[in-house]
Amino acid sequence: MSSPLRRAELVAGDDVAVVCGDVGYTYAETAERCRCLIAGLRGLGLGAGDRVAVVGGNCHRYLELYQAVPAGGMVLVPLNHRHAIAELRYALEDSGTKVLFTASGVEGLEDLVEHIIDLRAGYEALLAAGSGDAALADVDPTGLAGLFYTGGTTGAAKGVMLTHRNLVANAMHLQACWRFDSATRWLIAAPMFHAAGSIAVLATVWNGGQHVILPSFDPGTALDLIAEHRVTHTLMVPTMLAALSDEQRARPREVSSLRHIAHGGAPIATETLRRAHATFPGAELLHIYGATETSPIATLLPREERLLDAPQSRSCGRPAVGVEIAILALDGSALSVDEVGELAVRGANVMAGYWNKPEQTAAALIDGWYHTGDLGYQDSRGYIYLVDRAKDMIVTGGENVYSTEVEEALYRHAAVAEAAVFGIPDSRWGEAVHAVVVPRARVEIDELRAHCRSLIADYKVPKTIELRAEPLPKSAAGKLLKRELRAPYWRDQTLALAGA
Amino acid sequence: MSSPLRRAELVAGDDVAVVCGDVGYTYAETAERCRCLIAGLRGLGLGAGDRVAVVGGNCHRYLELYQAVPAGGMVLVPLNHRHAIAELRYALEDSGTKVLFTASGVEGLEDLVEHIIDLRAGYEALLAAGSGDAALADVDPTGLAGLFYTGGTTGAAKGVMLTHRNLVANAMHLQACWRFDSATRWLIAAPMFHAAGSIAVLATVWNGGQHVILPSFDPGTALDLIAEHRVTHTLMVPTMLAALSDEQRARPREVSSLRHIAHGGAPIATETLRRAHATFPGAELLHIYGATETSPIATLLPREERLLDAPQSRSCGRPAVGVEIAILALDGSALSVDEVGELAVRGANVMAGYWNKPEQTAAALIDGWYHTGDLGYQDSRGYIYLVDRAKDMIVTGGENVYSTEVEEALYRHAAVAEAAVFGIPDSRWGEAVHAVVVPRARVEIDELRAHCRSLIADYKVPKTIELRAEPLPKSAAGKLLKRELRAPYWRDQTLALAGA
Repeated sequence: MSSPLRRAELVAGDDVAVVCGDVGYTYAETAERCRCLIAGLRGLGLGAGDRVAVVGGNCHRYLELYQAVPAGGMVLVPLNHRHAIAELRYALEDSGTKVLFTASGVEGLEDLVEHIIDLRAGYEALLAAGSGDAALADVDPTGLAGLFYTGGTTGAAKGVMLTHRNLVANAMHLQACWRFDSATRWLIAAPMFHAAGSIAVLATVWNGGQHVILPSFDPGTALDLIAEHRVTHTLMVPTMLAALSDEQRARPREVSSLRHIAHGGAPIATETLRRAHATFPGAELLHIYGATETSPIATLLPREERLLDAPQSRSCGRPAVGVEIAILALDGSALSVDEVGELAVRGANVMAGYWNKPEQTAAALIDGWYHTGDLGYQDSRGYIYLVDRAKDMIVTGGENVYSTEVEEALYRHAAVAEAAVFGIPDSRWGEAVHAVVVPRARVEIDELRAHCRSLIADYKVPKTIELRAEPLPKSAAGKLLKRELRAPYWRDQTLALAGA
Repeated sequence: MSSPLRRAELVAGDDVAVVCGDVGYTYAETAERCRCLIAGLRGLGLGAGDRVAVVGGNCHRYLELYQAVPAGGMVLVPLNHRHAIAELRYALEDSGTKVLFTASGVEGLEDLVEHIIDLRAGYEALLAAGSGDAALADVDPTGLAGLFYTGGTTGAAKGVMLTHRNLVANAMHLQACWRFDSATRWLIAAPMFHAAGSIAVLATVWNGGQHVILPSFDPGTALDLIAEHRVTHTLMVPTMLAALSDEQRARPREVSSLRHIAHGGAPIATETLRRAHATFPGAELLHIYGATETSPIATLLPREERLLDAPQSRSCGRPAVGVEIAILALDGSALSVDEVGELAVRGANVMAGYWNKPEQTAAALIDGWYHTGDLGYQDSRGYIYLVDRAKDMIVTGGENVYSTEVEEALYRHAAVAEAAVFGIPDSRWGEAVHAVVVPRARVEIDELRAHCRSLIADYKVPKTIELRAEPLPKSAAGKLLKRELRAPYWRDQTLALAGA
């Protein structure tokens, strides 16, 4: 198959491909820079299948690496720039990376890779050294495009092997839901090392659309970029979308161009969606559920804003066209409508496996089905409802409590800005339901518990609630780090939750 | 991979899947009928890979066969119902068909197939005999879904082998251009044995949209169905679209629901597009170019109505996202921008080959590129312009004349309803440019020649023009049968055009 960039160069060579700060490049320029980058990497001795890692915030050079490294037959390894050196060392060693691009000086990695190249001057010097005559050659669709390390929040990291065909399938699934063309202007708001940041790169490039890059998330800067560049599409994780709505209400910008807002990466409260819809009434809301292992789209809920008063507002959508979902019992058998089980995903978007991890691969990939570890059910119209990750389910007095349901109840109180619910050790109940709440207005704990009791069963109502002034801890991708909140309670317990 | 019908049954089981005359079925009913059909065919002794042919006009049973036969692991062979018995015999024998469904009694085929089943009572009896417990099982994406006989207008027919993956790729390419959802109502206007009729089946089913079936083309009936069922999408060949515009102007219906009109299958005059846009101003026009061998989409020109005054109005669009096009010289080397050569197509949509025809397959499929036999060029923005099929090019006095350019000039005269241009033997020029014109108003031949002379070079202006009162001959798919017009002139020539 041909590089999507080659198509973009043909159909949109003179159009702006990317805007990042003061820098802007057309597709012809981007393609030329990518050819130089490939030539530069080859000049360092890299060949087909060699791994190239990148650690840094979003920038146009990251976007070039994202396109050029796979187009050059090499394998991209995007790493979380908030990871500690030990975590980076693990991923670099595990992947056998030869060249590492970094935005900031990282020490203690020199022994692991052949070259460490600074993402600014060093990168530009490499391009200048690379002759521009490296072609954007065809690639084998079944070949590896990237190793995407995952599991940062759930234990030992695994390198998810995504092929060119995986990424093409994902782009097709996204395009089947939203129409991309040369007028598309996509704001990359989430970190590019994460699927939430890179989800639309292929579809945007293929159609000659424009990328607008947000270096690191800030709601005011995001709105400024949307207004200045007439951004049409973006994807945010729930915490970003909530902050974007708050900022737009506090200091409104002219953002009528923003017609498509996707969200994913974490459960979202309906209240957050209501605020987003009220704040950006001209924008279509799209709920995306997936995993790095599914490239990432598994389910889609388009036009979600029309469903805010329907039961489907709690759903993460239906299987993307071309993707199959099964709900499985513990023994692997398929469950019926409305029964809670593990979600499994099959399709051309499902990863080739975990790098160097045959056992984990065999456990996760069974007969082509990727077992997500997420719990949910499907209704009679095919809508999927996530209840929790298996390990986030709270078992209290023999009852299963899904933390998302309790969080959803808390979010429906006007004073709740953020909420996290998890189980803590309890001598009577085994686990007790506990909540950490960041209020946006003054509120009493008893009032919150009474509010919950009006919405959910007694045994689900938090036994204890902690009020905090500071924001809850989040990963670089904006995901709530519940394990950090939970850990202190479980430190002295022999009954530690595996991998939690 | 899973049957698209299984997804439709899940997400849109209660929605209407198909309307055909007085008959309407939901997706749950359609899926059940397809399960019975598969069971019925198995009861006749058919197994994986066996061929099932159908000869008949469009109807809901044809749509069921189109879905059930491949879903049951068998291979569908849709045949042209206007073919002579000798042509049908060839295709049935070549394909080794076991079961033939026919809408009308066909005699002289009984010796070739095991079962001939009438498409009405016989079909329903087969369904009644088939238990409903045949599952819509998974299919191998690389397995054969259908044999589509092509070449009816250009010599010996060949069975184009399309796999499930080919058809899925085509559906993805169409969905990337037009958004399909449960509100989609697609009028099947072209014959279903042809790619123009079946092009959107997969995308419509996958998304739980509705099919409205036009049994055989008639512009008044088409408009009545569009008005009655609030049809949103259709595809027509140019002659159908021209007739639809004329009928709507003569007897307007309320057809504001029709927002998407695709056309393809034959070159179209810009004037035909202008009339269509003026007649259906709320509809987006989409030009599709392709071939049975490319499942069929190769290029797409969306929102064509915006380009009617631009040079791109003569283009058939740009490569569909996921499809590559190359323009090749006679020696197979790639040509540059604006150079005329043979179009070659590569992508997941390209056929597996011709059934039982290794030599023709080797000639047509080279390194994954399907050589179309069509001549054209690509401009600097990636737009493709077809000039002619190689054998339709006229060589007159050493100059190449593309018949489409001359036809385009003729169509720009208000009195021209239909025009066909081809070369006839000429002792002085080798070939002379000849035109057959069906006028819609009184017009003199000299006036038409003067009109052409104002638009195209002298050597391209028809040396002779024949005026006819009756419509030009067309294939069942609505394609102009130029060979029938041309044949009488070449009958006595030793210089017969191969395959013409």
